[in-house]
Amino acid sequence: MELNVNKTVADIATLVGGKVAGDGSFLIDKAATLKEAGPADLSFLGNQKYAQAAAASQAGCLLLPQGAESLACAAKSRIFVEDPQFAFSQVLAMIVERQPKSPPSLDAKASIHYQAKMGPGVSVGPFAVVERGAAIGEGTTIGAQCYIGENAKIGRFCRIYPQVVIREDCVVGDRAVIHSGTVIGADGFGFSPDKKTGKHRKLPQVGNVVVGDDVEIGANVAIDRASVGSTKIGSGTKIDNLVQIAHGVKIGPDCIIVSQTGIAGSSELGHHVVLGGQVGLVGHIAIGDGVQVGAQSGIMSDVPAGTIMFGYPARPHRESFKLQALYGRLPELFQAVKQIKQKLGITDGSKA
Amino acid sequence: MELNVNKTVADIATLVGGKVAGDGSFLIDKAATLKEAGPADLSFLGNQKYAQAAAASQAGCLLLPQGAESLACAAKSRIFVEDPQFAFSQVLAMIVERQPKSPPSLDAKASIHYQAKMGPGVSVGPFAVVERGAAIGEGTTIGAQCYIGENAKIGRFCRIYPQVVIREDCVVGDRAVIHSGTVIGADGFGFSPDKKTGKHRKLPQVGNVVVGDDVEIGANVAIDRASVGSTKIGSGTKIDNLVQIAHGVKIGPDCIIVSQTGIAGSSELGHHVVLGGQVGLVGHIAIGDGVQVGAQSGIMSDVPAGTIMFGYPARPHRESFKLQALYGRLPELFQAVKQIKQKLGITDGSKA
Amino acid sequence: MELNVNKTVADIATLVGGKVAGDGSFLIDKAATLKEAGPADLSFLGNQKYAQAAAASQAGCLLLPQGAESLACAAKSRIFVEDPQFAFSQVLAMIVERQPKSPPSLDAKASIHYQAKMGPGVSVGPFAVVERGAAIGEGTTIGAQCYIGENAKIGRFCRIYPQVVIREDCVVGDRAVIHSGTVIGADGFGFSPDKKTGKHRKLPQVGNVVVGDDVEIGANVAIDRASVGSTKIGSGTKIDNLVQIAHGVKIGPDCIIVSQTGIAGSSELGHHVVLGGQVGLVGHIAIGDGVQVGAQSGIMSDVPAGTIMFGYPARPHRESFKLQALYGRLPELFQAVKQIKQKLGITDGSKA
Repeated sequence: MELNVNKTVADIATLVGGKVAGDGSFLIDKAATLKEAGPADLSFLGNQKYAQAAAASQAGCLLLPQGAESLACAAKSRIFVEDPQFAFSQVLAMIVERQPKSPPSLDAKASIHYQAKMGPGVSVGPFAVVERGAAIGEGTTIGAQCYIGENAKIGRFCRIYPQVVIREDCVVGDRAVIHSGTVIGADGFGFSPDKKTGKHRKLPQVGNVVVGDDVEIGANVAIDRASVGSTKIGSGTKIDNLVQIAHGVKIGPDCIIVSQTGIAGSSELGHHVVLGGQVGLVGHIAIGDGVQVGAQSGIMSDVPAGTIMFGYPARPHRESFKLQALYGRLPELFQAVKQIKQKLGITDGSKA
Repeated sequence: MELNVNKTVADIATLVGGKVAGDGSFLIDKAATLKEAGPADLSFLGNQKYAQAAAASQAGCLLLPQGAESLACAAKSRIFVEDPQFAFSQVLAMIVERQPKSPPSLDAKASIHYQAKMGPGVSVGPFAVVERGAAIGEGTTIGAQCYIGENAKIGRFCRIYPQVVIREDCVVGDRAVIHSGTVIGADGFGFSPDKKTGKHRKLPQVGNVVVGDDVEIGANVAIDRASVGSTKIGSGTKIDNLVQIAHGVKIGPDCIIVSQTGIAGSSELGHHVVLGGQVGLVGHIAIGDGVQVGAQSGIMSDVPAGTIMFGYPARPHRESFKLQALYGRLPELFQAVKQIKQKLGITDGSKA
Repeated sequence: MELNVNKTVADIATLVGGKVAGDGSFLIDKAATLKEAGPADLSFLGNQKYAQAAAASQAGCLLLPQGAESLACAAKSRIFVEDPQFAFSQVLAMIVERQPKSPPSLDAKASIHYQAKMGPGVSVGPFAVVERGAAIGEGTTIGAQCYIGENAKIGRFCRIYPQVVIREDCVVGDRAVIHSGTVIGADGFGFSPDKKTGKHRKLPQVGNVVVGDDVEIGANVAIDRASVGSTKIGSGTKIDNLVQIAHGVKIGPDCIIVSQTGIAGSSELGHHVVLGGQVGLVGHIAIGDGVQVGAQSGIMSDVPAGTIMFGYPARPHRESFKLQALYGRLPELFQAVKQIKQKLGITDGSKA
């Protein structure tokens, strides 16, 4: 997509609620990264790690954090805002808004059951399947090659990208975004060992998945249906790619689940929980509101609200960092004990 | 799905082989979770962690483990069984059995090659592709938008959910269940470095995947075809979502592979192996019968039959648990050594 | 696929540049694994772990490494080469070359926009979608049920397997291979917390993904589009199944990324980097040329070129292996300190 801005610095400052330093009448051409922006373009400094890149950038206008007034840079104009990354995203959103939109249409190549309920302004792409009794809310787009199972309900103004599977009886709220390759409502992984035969007997998985409003789910995610009742994703929660959410899990509102994390069956998360990438949670545990878990950590038991956890197995992060530091000092500890034993004349054959 | 039971407590006790306490003539309305069950409903206590929830449940009838006769609860009727979760699943299976079933059909919107062999009672959903020479056994359902490659063989009474890919020459046994988004038979990850150019040269992957009878495979799983010969999944083995099984792996019968686990090339598992979630196995190793591996563990070498492994890198679980406990006590150990050094007048500048 | 060789030992030696020992006129029937090869078949010893299997093999001809002249085996003929696995793969490639190939065709059941640009000799499978402005280069195969978004560009002689999604504006070079279930160009995971409401506001993701020449990408991989600019995969890089590559990541040429690894946003990799399976990299870091990272490691900061890293958190591998060895000796260290304290009469109530 061409990121043409075509607004003056002053216009942009008004849009993002920022304060201009330099030439406000300057007309911005494009939005671009620090590296790629030219003398007519807009960029931003969103992370102090990139302060040098900002200083070296050829951008004509930079969105900068308040307090960065002294940053030396090539930009003729600067706009100071509280959150430059978000301000830049507001400019991008303006550009996206201007793009021509296709009128809604039910593609003739889709397979839509005559007993499916389609709201006004719904789009369904080619080779999508909408089964009997499914209901798609106003203004929702079902991408090409999606599968919407029997009696599934999708809310209003959702964006379901190509090749998503939403199995029978599952429910998605309003304004949800679901990316390609994601499977919602596959059977939970439930088997019971038959002690006599050693065979694993399947436990029926006849519940569903309920996804709240304003949820975003990345690509190739798997959220399993509950055995009975519902697997739940709270409103406003955002889930990254390749995440596994097992049957019966309940995730509260406004959580962030980073990619490749797995949550085992029936565990419950409060609101505003943040799980880093590749985190694992065992089943049947409770994670309190606002808990944050560092990447690759393993959570094996309940975590009280507000705790920051890290490590494998996870511990409160200060304790975990301290232990890791001591772990790195094991060679000197072994050395010290060896020296003490020599001094004391302990020669027991132990290697420590 | 409505979980209407519409049977008396006595009927249910007969179905599950349990013993009634209380009113056996009581007519059960629905099957439900402990939290959601009302005074006319059936629920169960499947895990001692939920004993309080069972005590607090409004369920009219509870399936309870033998020995829980003294549990105080609101249930007017109780049924005591060996395995309440399995008993409850038998009730669910009865409900599923009663659901009306669509007659088998080859959807007119599917693309089925005229040289594909279709058994009696096969269903193929819309936009599915069945290539030349593929064979689908009696009573098997191929979901919408599935891809069945040339000369692939699918057994009898399988359930292949929408958007599964089974590549050319792969074989699936009878009664297998494969969930959406799973890819069977993509090329194994095999490259050979060319020392002169630094380029990775592709090694042809011309083997296949052979999946046994009664295997269940979750959503978004990847099982690669062997370079030569077969990648094998033993009969009765159950594989959870997002699992990676590399080329040439051989998994024995009746194993359990929990989600997001990865098994590198050519490793071999015996029967009844259990791998927890997010486990990693390196390639070219042998895992004995009945081995159990804890979640997130990393297995780097052969494991003898019957061993329980845990940790990264994994060790026998008792050793691993002991080492983790000692790890948590490193601060006191460093403190003790410091104290000893003071007492002995050792002042070598080391920090330990 | 039948792996019929139908060449003499001498012919094969010529093909692979090897030296024959034994009967060069012997006609080879099939290529097979060490276990499955019969007295008329060809196999190979590619890994010293399988020396016993080679000795026990019934293969009539073995490809062996130079220096293995003394290996006792049943093979009547042996061919000595520098790299037996690669030599075997050359035989497989010859077999693959001989297979009859379908002529290119645009399947009548595909949905190809009239403003898509199709090069000569392009194939598009049934139920694939190619959107407006997409361009497919000469000789490229787009598998069944693929989705190629608006203005996406795919190079020449690529092989895109069934059910791949390549979103709008993304670019793929020449001779790329992309396996089923992979999603290229889903939105990056970018949200900005609104401190007033506690809600996560979506940051538009309007960049793209640029995949170089000769890249291979496995099954069910997710490569997100950049917020602005491009996520980049360098030419010659090979990516295994279920890998996560976040927005704005730049991967250099000729890297190897093993399955289930995740790379967080904006991190940059040099050339010839090797990441083992299930590795995690945090965002905004730089990994130098030729870095190698062991399986399941967690990389939390920049890594200089040429380093071998291992562990969680990762350290240079020698240090990591030493620390792990000392970790395993913690019991004897605790024991030694206890003994010292006894000898010194320290009885402070500490357990160490």
